[in-house]
Amino acid sequence: MEKNLLLTIEYDGTNFFGWQRQPGLRTGQGEIEKALSLALGRVALIEGVSRTDKGVHARDQKVTFRGDIKIPTEKIPQVLNRYLAKWQGVNEVTGSISDIRVTKAEEMEEGFHARFSALGKTYSYRIFTGMEEALIWNRYCFINDELDLAKMREAGRLLVGTHDFGGFQSTGSNPRLTTVRTIYNLNLKAEGDSIIMEVTGDGFLYNMVRIIAGSLIDVGRGKIGIEHVEKALLEQRRELLGFTAPAQGLCLEKVYYNLEEIDKIKLREM
Amino acid sequence: MEKNLLLTIEYDGTNFFGWQRQPGLRTGQGEIEKALSLALGRVALIEGVSRTDKGVHARDQKVTFRGDIKIPTEKIPQVLNRYLAKWQGVNEVTGSISDIRVTKAEEMEEGFHARFSALGKTYSYRIFTGMEEALIWNRYCFINDELDLAKMREAGRLLVGTHDFGGFQSTGSNPRLTTVRTIYNLNLKAEGDSIIMEVTGDGFLYNMVRIIAGSLIDVGRGKIGIEHVEKALLEQRRELLGFTAPAQGLCLEKVYYNLEEIDKIKLREM
Repeated sequence: MEKNLLLTIEYDGTNFFGWQRQPGLRTGQGEIEKALSLALGRVALIEGVSRTDKGVHARDQKVTFRGDIKIPTEKIPQVLNRYLAKWQGVNEVTGSISDIRVTKAEEMEEGFHARFSALGKTYSYRIFTGMEEALIWNRYCFINDELDLAKMREAGRLLVGTHDFGGFQSTGSNPRLTTVRTIYNLNLKAEGDSIIMEVTGDGFLYNMVRIIAGSLIDVGRGKIGIEHVEKALLEQRRELLGFTAPAQGLCLEKVYYNLEEIDKIKLREM
Repeated sequence: MEKNLLLTIEYDGTNFFGWQRQPGLRTGQGEIEKALSLALGRVALIEGVSRTDKGVHARDQKVTFRGDIKIPTEKIPQVLNRYLAKWQGVNEVTGSISDIRVTKAEEMEEGFHARFSALGKTYSYRIFTGMEEALIWNRYCFINDELDLAKMREAGRLLVGTHDFGGFQSTGSNPRLTTVRTIYNLNLKAEGDSIIMEVTGDGFLYNMVRIIAGSLIDVGRGKIGIEHVEKALLEQRRELLGFTAPAQGLCLEKVYYNLEEIDKIKLREM
């Protein structure tokens, strides 16, 4: 029977050359396609909702796969994880360990597509202001300066809403497409020596979340003013903004397929 | 001026082939020796207090290095970290990021040696009983069974004190050396879905902490009884004990050079 499957995937991006399939390199898409192909006995290609860069993590990468699949849907994560663990190394006693896992498989109606049906996404960005620590090197952006959280929040508030984010992208983006996006919520949470930014929007341009994070950090340490962010937003000027914060702080946290979930996010405070 | 330097090093062991220098492979000792050699302009060899295995982490690896060093002692971590970051990749704006760092440099009296002067060590072992998570795959041992913490504590208490731990070692240990060791404290702490074991002793045999962790896990899930641990301790029989818990859960937390610190640890409850 032909099924339209939605898979949820999580990974620690440290040892991946990003999400997208690349010949000879270990990537998220490549690993999932290998596992699926082996499980089904035929070549299986998928596409993810987000093409995360090298070093970026995900708790909720989504892919759809249509096909005639005999494995019961609820068993699919277990079957695929067995193949994924094979490449990472299996511990005989404790079972699989792997830096990429399928956490869920669902059957969706026919027209559903992981990417085209997505209504929004939440990314987190983790900043560490304490002494740099080698044991969390691959999860945080380390900033040695003191950060003014109130100013960062003020700058963050400017970004919420529908704007032309043309200044908030790296070269490499497709210039013919619109750069108007809606940010539903941007939240900055301080926990001990870390600041965690969570941003939810209907979509993000190439490197947009990392440029937002870098700009809020630079506002927080006084390298740029809030007025620069405001101006960059009005005039789409990348050079007024802060640096592109490094990949390892970024994580795709959640993908939304219904508006009620997004409405709840909108009500959250900064 | 000849100095006897004590360096404190921390690392995420995920991408190291263990601590010990090995030609052509990235190891903790190898990275520190490269950095020191470049900083000093001559070959510099060191030795660590603990030869951690592939995948094992450290917050407090200690090495001593004697030599004529012109760099002021307080600047040494910064200088070495610049070289260490070079291999790992430097972020232009946020500074170095690296999975290995020198956190401290101290000048010690002439007879002091990182390994021979050490009076004890604390290791932690992290167990996760919740759903396996790809984002923490390299820091925990994942156990799908329910664990009886009270039983694990009871078995742990048997190990505290001075015993012949001949059963608690992997082959590869030097058979001519004594296998008598003293465990000062063994503590099991439950936090949400994780159980963290902390064990402090005057020294540990090869894989001893991982065999202790595996045995307490197996007691916790009913695979072996407390009486097996007791018997293994009396008769030095490895086969009565549990599995050797995997490397990624293990971390060298602290090395002690004075007895007062150890006396404080002894007073901690299980």
